[in-house]
Amino acid sequence: MKIEDKIETFNSLIKRRGFIWGPSPEIYGGLAGFYSYGPAGMALKNNILSIFRRELRYFGFGEVECPTIMPEIVWKASGHLDRFIDPILKCSKCATLLRADKFLQEAFPDRMIDGMSYEEMEQLVKANKITCPKCDTPFGKIGEYNLMLKTQVGAGNTVYLRPETATTTYLLFNRLNQDARRQYPIRVFQYGKAYRNEISPRQQILRMRAFDQFELQFFISKEQEMEFEDYEDIKDTLLPLLDWQMQDNNLSEPKMTPLDKAISNGTLKKPAFAYCMYLGYYLTKILGFTDDMIRLRQHSPHERAHYADDAWDLEIKTNQFGWVEICGIHDRTDYDLKCHGKFAKENFEIAMGSDPKNKEIPQILEIAFGPDRIIYTLLDTLFEVEEIKPTKKDDQRIVLKLGLELAPNTVAVFPLKKNEERIRSLAKNIHKKLIENRINSFYDEKGAIGKLYRRQDELGTPFCITVDFQSLEDDTVTIRYRDSMNQERINIPEISNFLKK
Amino acid sequence: MKIEDKIETFNSLIKRRGFIWGPSPEIYGGLAGFYSYGPAGMALKNNILSIFRRELRYFGFGEVECPTIMPEIVWKASGHLDRFIDPILKCSKCATLLRADKFLQEAFPDRMIDGMSYEEMEQLVKANKITCPKCDTPFGKIGEYNLMLKTQVGAGNTVYLRPETATTTYLLFNRLNQDARRQYPIRVFQYGKAYRNEISPRQQILRMRAFDQFELQFFISKEQEMEFEDYEDIKDTLLPLLDWQMQDNNLSEPKMTPLDKAISNGTLKKPAFAYCMYLGYYLTKILGFTDDMIRLRQHSPHERAHYADDAWDLEIKTNQFGWVEICGIHDRTDYDLKCHGKFAKENFEIAMGSDPKNKEIPQILEIAFGPDRIIYTLLDTLFEVEEIKPTKKDDQRIVLKLGLELAPNTVAVFPLKKNEERIRSLAKNIHKKLIENRINSFYDEKGAIGKLYRRQDELGTPFCITVDFQSLEDDTVTIRYRDSMNQERINIPEISNFLKK
Repeated sequence: MKIEDKIETFNSLIKRRGFIWGPSPEIYGGLAGFYSYGPAGMALKNNILSIFRRELRYFGFGEVECPTIMPEIVWKASGHLDRFIDPILKCSKCATLLRADKFLQEAFPDRMIDGMSYEEMEQLVKANKITCPKCDTPFGKIGEYNLMLKTQVGAGNTVYLRPETATTTYLLFNRLNQDARRQYPIRVFQYGKAYRNEISPRQQILRMRAFDQFELQFFISKEQEMEFEDYEDIKDTLLPLLDWQMQDNNLSEPKMTPLDKAISNGTLKKPAFAYCMYLGYYLTKILGFTDDMIRLRQHSPHERAHYADDAWDLEIKTNQFGWVEICGIHDRTDYDLKCHGKFAKENFEIAMGSDPKNKEIPQILEIAFGPDRIIYTLLDTLFEVEEIKPTKKDDQRIVLKLGLELAPNTVAVFPLKKNEERIRSLAKNIHKKLIENRINSFYDEKGAIGKLYRRQDELGTPFCITVDFQSLEDDTVTIRYRDSMNQERINIPEISNFLKK
Repeated sequence: MKIEDKIETFNSLIKRRGFIWGPSPEIYGGLAGFYSYGPAGMALKNNILSIFRRELRYFGFGEVECPTIMPEIVWKASGHLDRFIDPILKCSKCATLLRADKFLQEAFPDRMIDGMSYEEMEQLVKANKITCPKCDTPFGKIGEYNLMLKTQVGAGNTVYLRPETATTTYLLFNRLNQDARRQYPIRVFQYGKAYRNEISPRQQILRMRAFDQFELQFFISKEQEMEFEDYEDIKDTLLPLLDWQMQDNNLSEPKMTPLDKAISNGTLKKPAFAYCMYLGYYLTKILGFTDDMIRLRQHSPHERAHYADDAWDLEIKTNQFGWVEICGIHDRTDYDLKCHGKFAKENFEIAMGSDPKNKEIPQILEIAFGPDRIIYTLLDTLFEVEEIKPTKKDDQRIVLKLGLELAPNTVAVFPLKKNEERIRSLAKNIHKKLIENRINSFYDEKGAIGKLYRRQDELGTPFCITVDFQSLEDDTVTIRYRDSMNQERINIPEISNFLKK
């Protein structure tokens, strides 16, 4: 199958099977950058979040949730009001709005636009007489466009929808510090919506205007960053690293590197930051991504956000969009608490070590996941079109090879003949028992058995159970395995225990 | 203990133990109507959501998630742009903004303001020469204040933050109908944020400007509303009903009434709606609320929202705020799909019964929970201050009697002496084993044993395990039960199995 056809099949599948719908609201034509999750997509998302929450409890994290709306002063302090800005070109005649850097990069593929100043971009526009692609009017100055959504609450308070969860977590520092009772580092995460008024939303759910973030934070002392107990347990782990010098040498494939080597050769400066890299990688691997799809790519110094001392993207190799970032790991230093301390007139200096006189503003290390991007990359990479024994009707099958814990349905139960009441009622009972045992079972009788299997393959259901005439006689059913398509008979009373293990 | 003292103790506890913090952001003085959940509050919330999701799968529901931002036309069609409005009094001199109906109700406790027209309220203001409470300037006309938060996306699209999740679910109808493959009613729910620009946010997290909704929807035919298969299984259930005629007779206590009696005497019109009442009640009971704290209160005809043919509030009797609505059950008829059909130029008529020629716009029945209110009412009603054997130091204990599945920690593990390394290391190992078995264990060594118990009582932890010298000899630990405070010895290898059951 050609890759273009496969991508088309995939894009149709994620709508047809209820994973992702949009742009939303579809019946009103859709607003660019806004999507909805259907039942299969939400089940997948909930499974991802459950795994993350369970694992992070094990790693000692607490969870918080803050408002998605914050007053202007918060974003003044965080730097977002002044710096969370895209350069734009606006047509003076037809009002077409373009993101200047992206537009110029496409116009001049051989130039490096990233990192150019506004003046340099303006020079480029003038020198080449760049005009509006819609009405051909010459472009003038580069403008500024703040990516935050603004609104008013109450009697005239200017507020913004948060562009990230992280800042809202930092504002809780005094509370978290009290809650932690001097057990450092403080480990906390927040999951929730963030908003960016993208000029040109694109790539489906990869660049939306409203999206999920799942951001982990360490509040840690300078000393602990360099001598971090938990690092000792994981320092031999190999991670697929692509540092910025490798990128400067035009390499794009990562190299499996032990963390302690990355520390000793200076690629990474701090053991605690290396631990964050490990944790981001660990949480990615348990979702079923394999090493050949993962790389950790370091930002070059000019690519970093305004708050970062070191920054890496954890990226997944997709079929449709190449390497896609699903997680960013950032050394934010004491930048955030320093800024908020200044604006809120709070002193965030605390004693984090054994000496109570030695006070410091905590450093922040961050691991920021984008759950929408996790969902997209899981579907993209685990989607397969298999050629099977070529008969007239069924020469290929679509299958989503989602892990057991991720699949929307763990098992589906079918009656071989829905018009045979004894078979139907036995199948329904088996389904009901599974549900009572809190196993995610799905009952289906709408269609012939081949069609029922195909539908579950497309949803990534690992097991299908079929009840037939033999079931009525010997209390067994057929269980079919999604990946191998093998079938075997299993005793009905053993189904629950079989699925639980 | 006096009730006022108990309420003060409670309000301090929910902050001190990390349940609810705010108004947020606290370090910037806080914005009225916005709150944060701390680690204990989030753990409780996640446990509630997990129970709901698991149960609703059993009841045949799928879950969807839609954008929190929708274009203006959506709210024009839904009626929110024209009718989601509060009457206000605005001072022409000092700009003080008051919600007119609430303000007048307080000024005239004996008059029934609810249901008055704007003209009637204006009459009342004039006749009594009502003035601004801040600067004494006479008030003039009643104004209108739309409760939706407005912003712009892209190049000038006017959009609103959704005031409810329900409408966004309805816009998915075509997709959901395809997904359901003619299995009616369609059962679907959505959990997420909604926003209301309340003029005077109050009562902590009960009336916020940003809040959670968990809204269940049935898309159902008129015929199915009257002949609903699932109703037969539950029609004998007794529900604590307070219909509007009882309220007209000044009754406030509900009467336990079998659903089929409520149907036969005309209190409820439709068996499918009675089933919704049952489902709302069932989901409330499994969280641990008891019948003496629950009532289902019917809206009087003039109290209903613009879309409702019948409406009931499921309310919980709290210590601090009296009866508090945690769930609304609404018969929305075909109002919503009719409106959106008209504005989006879609025909939502479908064949839902056996006759494919008989097409109709589906009716919608809704069960709308407010998770923040569930959290508040659980904490409020399950919070207890117990007098225990009066010694000098410990004459009372604070305890949260949260159900096993709801408590932020299932178990806490303590070393009796943290300086005794063998005890400490055994305690840590027990904790680690529990976590590896995915049991929500919490390890604590910061404080004397009495203090450790008190902290866990305040968090609602059902079990505490203490490791002592005897543990080193005979492989047993002390397990203490939160509610009875009884203690017994248990073999270490049996802890996990004991807690799992």
